[in-house]
Amino acid sequence: MDSAEAEIPVDMVPPWLVSTASALEIFHAAALVHDDIIDNSDTRRGAASAHRLFEAMHATHQWAGAPAGYGSAAAILLGDLMLGWSDELLDEGLDAVPDRRSARRARLEFNRMRTEVTVGQYLDILEERAWLTQPESELQERALRVIVYKSAKYSVQAPLVIGAALCGATTEQLDGLRSFGLPLGIAYQLRDDLLGVFGDAEVTGKPSGDDLREGKRTVLMALAREAASASELQLLDTLVGDPELDSAQVALLQHTIQAGGAVEQVERLIDDYVREATQALDAAPIGSTAKAKLGQLTETVIRRAY
Amino acid sequence: MDSAEAEIPVDMVPPWLVSTASALEIFHAAALVHDDIIDNSDTRRGAASAHRLFEAMHATHQWAGAPAGYGSAAAILLGDLMLGWSDELLDEGLDAVPDRRSARRARLEFNRMRTEVTVGQYLDILEERAWLTQPESELQERALRVIVYKSAKYSVQAPLVIGAALCGATTEQLDGLRSFGLPLGIAYQLRDDLLGVFGDAEVTGKPSGDDLREGKRTVLMALAREAASASELQLLDTLVGDPELDSAQVALLQHTIQAGGAVEQVERLIDDYVREATQALDAAPIGSTAKAKLGQLTETVIRRAY
Repeated sequence: MDSAEAEIPVDMVPPWLVSTASALEIFHAAALVHDDIIDNSDTRRGAASAHRLFEAMHATHQWAGAPAGYGSAAAILLGDLMLGWSDELLDEGLDAVPDRRSARRARLEFNRMRTEVTVGQYLDILEERAWLTQPESELQERALRVIVYKSAKYSVQAPLVIGAALCGATTEQLDGLRSFGLPLGIAYQLRDDLLGVFGDAEVTGKPSGDDLREGKRTVLMALAREAASASELQLLDTLVGDPELDSAQVALLQHTIQAGGAVEQVERLIDDYVREATQALDAAPIGSTAKAKLGQLTETVIRRAY
Repeated sequence: MDSAEAEIPVDMVPPWLVSTASALEIFHAAALVHDDIIDNSDTRRGAASAHRLFEAMHATHQWAGAPAGYGSAAAILLGDLMLGWSDELLDEGLDAVPDRRSARRARLEFNRMRTEVTVGQYLDILEERAWLTQPESELQERALRVIVYKSAKYSVQAPLVIGAALCGATTEQLDGLRSFGLPLGIAYQLRDDLLGVFGDAEVTGKPSGDDLREGKRTVLMALAREAASASELQLLDTLVGDPELDSAQVALLQHTIQAGGAVEQVERLIDDYVREATQALDAAPIGSTAKAKLGQLTETVIRRAY
């Protein structure tokens, strides 16, 4: 924890804020448990994913049937349990919020977020499978739509708005935070997409090149395809999405994507979205302390290392 | 709809009752969507299960990757979406319930039900895999515990209590309904377990002998094992849980289970639990119209045909 985060003493934080923040965290964890089943991910935050843990439990005890089926079944139920608990935690917190109108507003924002991120996840897995049957010219647009729903609103915009609503923000303040949060969230995910292809496993906690094995249809990949020659396109089509890619194949794909200029283009997009976010933050009718904090958040997104 | 159900005109039903009842229905549908992935079920209510529908969509459009992975991924998200919506529907209904204390009580009962059924589901899939490594002498007890959490509380007890709480029932009335609902719910599931082994596909909407292919560790199976000779036990161990069982093997297992007297024993258990439920209903401090309706519900559970 850095000094800026330590400004509010723990005993000054109202219990309802702890409950509502925990509700967001538990909802997020539930989504990740299900996401890891969907993406067939072995690891999460550098440790085994939930379904792999259940799978290992099955194998260790030599239970009947296949470990993999047990792993995903148990993790589906674990995620369901956590979805319910996140909801209970939120209600517990909201019940104690002094202003009823603020509590109601925060609940509506949470509900919208919950629906939008789930639909965003669906758009993501649909795009991974169906992109070839959709117009190539809309590839980047569709990738951006996935980012908006799956990441930008969910990871940045909604939590900001929920927190502000809880504390009685005005409609103008909420709108200002929305205008700041959306482009910042997009920039955040564009950075994450770069990390998914070029990131160091030690930093990201995920195997290097994981997005290539998964065949994620990101803005980065759309731009790489636009710049690719016919033979490079064939290479991308053959290798991207192959779960068995070895490190040499990952390196070859990284080189191809980099050489076409897609990385620079994504970096420019990140700059543009960060600029948009910064301008929205400047214009937002919120206090200077909040602005300074959110400025720090912006810095974090810009700086995330490969 | 029979004449008894038609007694309340539709325009007399308060909107909050429609919303709360719909919330239970959507929660149930969400649980079934996930349950069908977990149990690898092809059909539900005589039609294709959700994950098989998504799988078919994938195959029809010849999208990239394996249809099965897309099917379960999309159905996990569909279930998540419905879990969220059931929650919103419930809040929408509860907000309009005239008595705040009743609304709060109903919400707590719903939350408990949501947790208990999910844990009951987990106990069920755990038992399917781990039963061999647990004491054989506790087989029936463990199967009964699964029934209590996965079915009896969820399918009968909780919906009764939630409905009554919404309408301002007293603590004594809620306790009376609990004492009625639990044994009735157990009887209901014991009947369902018989149908899972002996039921007609045309009546149940599920392939005959499905519980045998799934290897469900029911009270029926526990009693069948107790009565089995060494060679019959070997037969049960070899075949039960084999997803590829053909109709001759299903018939052989049905004969073995029936010959040992397990079916009669389960029928006697059903009678005992129905008697307990009936006595609890007689003793419950509720009105005569409600008693008559719940008596009809009891009849339905007794009568369900093979």
